[in-house]
Amino acid sequence: MTTTTAMLETYPRPIGLDHRKLAATIDALAECAQTCTSCADACLGEDMVAELITCVATNLDCADICAAAARVLSRRVGFDPTITDNVLQACIAACRACGDECSRHASMHEHCRICAESCRACLLACEDLLATMS
Amino acid sequence: MTTTTAMLETYPRPIGLDHRKLAATIDALAECAQTCTSCADACLGEDMVAELITCVATNLDCADICAAAARVLSRRVGFDPTITDNVLQACIAACRACGDECSRHASMHEHCRICAESCRACLLACEDLLATMS
Amino acid sequence: MTTTTAMLETYPRPIGLDHRKLAATIDALAECAQTCTSCADACLGEDMVAELITCVATNLDCADICAAAARVLSRRVGFDPTITDNVLQACIAACRACGDECSRHASMHEHCRICAESCRACLLACEDLLATMS
Amino acid sequence: MTTTTAMLETYPRPIGLDHRKLAATIDALAECAQTCTSCADACLGEDMVAELITCVATNLDCADICAAAARVLSRRVGFDPTITDNVLQACIAACRACGDECSRHASMHEHCRICAESCRACLLACEDLLATMS
Repeated sequence: MTTTTAMLETYPRPIGLDHRKLAATIDALAECAQTCTSCADACLGEDMVAELITCVATNLDCADICAAAARVLSRRVGFDPTITDNVLQACIAACRACGDECSRHASMHEHCRICAESCRACLLACEDLLATMS
Repeated sequence: MTTTTAMLETYPRPIGLDHRKLAATIDALAECAQTCTSCADACLGEDMVAELITCVATNLDCADICAAAARVLSRRVGFDPTITDNVLQACIAACRACGDECSRHASMHEHCRICAESCRACLLACEDLLATMS
Repeated sequence: MTTTTAMLETYPRPIGLDHRKLAATIDALAECAQTCTSCADACLGEDMVAELITCVATNLDCADICAAAARVLSRRVGFDPTITDNVLQACIAACRACGDECSRHASMHEHCRICAESCRACLLACEDLLATMS
Repeated sequence: MTTTTAMLETYPRPIGLDHRKLAATIDALAECAQTCTSCADACLGEDMVAELITCVATNLDCADICAAAARVLSRRVGFDPTITDNVLQACIAACRACGDECSRHASMHEHCRICAESCRACLLACEDLLATMS
């Protein structure tokens, strides 16, 4: 059990979403944000950085969007389904773009391969949580 | 001319969006994020905080979403219309929810009145930029 | 092995710090940021929120500082020992204040107990990494 | 008068710091964070990006640290002088490193020249506020 799950279980009010899927999504978003931040920096450190600038920028976008989403999903007071839906859609768009971009360099750069996997896992978690809301 | 506009004008590549509206939106997002952060804290400082907890939480959500959006919009390398569209939609949802919530307390708390105005201005800027993209 | 460690191991240049301790600190910072964000929200959801406002605000400060620090530590290009040292000192101050505040409510609120533990673990990880830099 | 000042003036409790200098510092931090985010992206867009990777990474560090600091300084509930002092020291270190790095490219890249100025102004605002706290 991660700390995210433990914290949700001590929450003093109704959560409004499936506990397990919510915790899994928050954890996937946090991991994706961290991996994208590292991948942007690893790309900057490559000799062929000039060919990786789209990858750096997309990593930074995905990190910012996923980090904000992890915070929004962690806040259960004032839960607003419209905000949650829109934020998850933004994460799905960012994870798709970043996962696709990193996949292009995955055979050459191991950090891009790991990052593409994180983006893919995060995208699936967001879609899975979104499906419980409709 | 704000620094945001000056920075966009020195950008070494095509911007891909209307300069003036892009700069206005980034500035509106940054101001809204800052005002929501302050409003959350001012609400916490009110004697009647128990009646303002939704306002605090919605302020925090709006601050996180607008701050992330200001960063994403500032990045022109790897510009992705789908990410931009989704991020702007998330801002519109957050600014609407936060502006509505703050408006309920605007007659009693000046910080909520100012924050409702910032959210409304930010919402309009996002809608205006979005309209140029379709 | 966490993704943080895997990403550091694929880094194309020298890391400049002890790999294992750096990864442990980044993971502790990310967990602390997440736990503090949740604890702030759980405190807002308590009936006695009026007695928890310092805890909410300190949680928010600690979350912002630790989240920024996790990003800075993840960036190895342009590693600057003075920035790293100062950022770790800021985390130590924030984790100490937040851990102390949460400890005061730990017997009453399980989320504060878990959060105090996260802050304490993060503080120790930061001190441990800092000790390798002197 | 900026919105930051207006919000501080509506604050329901004592502020604990010089209003005018606090507002000036928050505004300088927010502007610096925004300028550094843009400068990182503009550097990525330059043909000579391989010579600017330290500038990109230092810009990203400075943006994250200043953005977190703007939030911490905006929170007056639970004001903790030790956290504030440490956060301001981290900003000073980041603004010095980023201002120095951007200055090296200022004659060649206008975005670096503007960013070096933002960093310098932010550093001075942080030092000025810090001086009122001792």
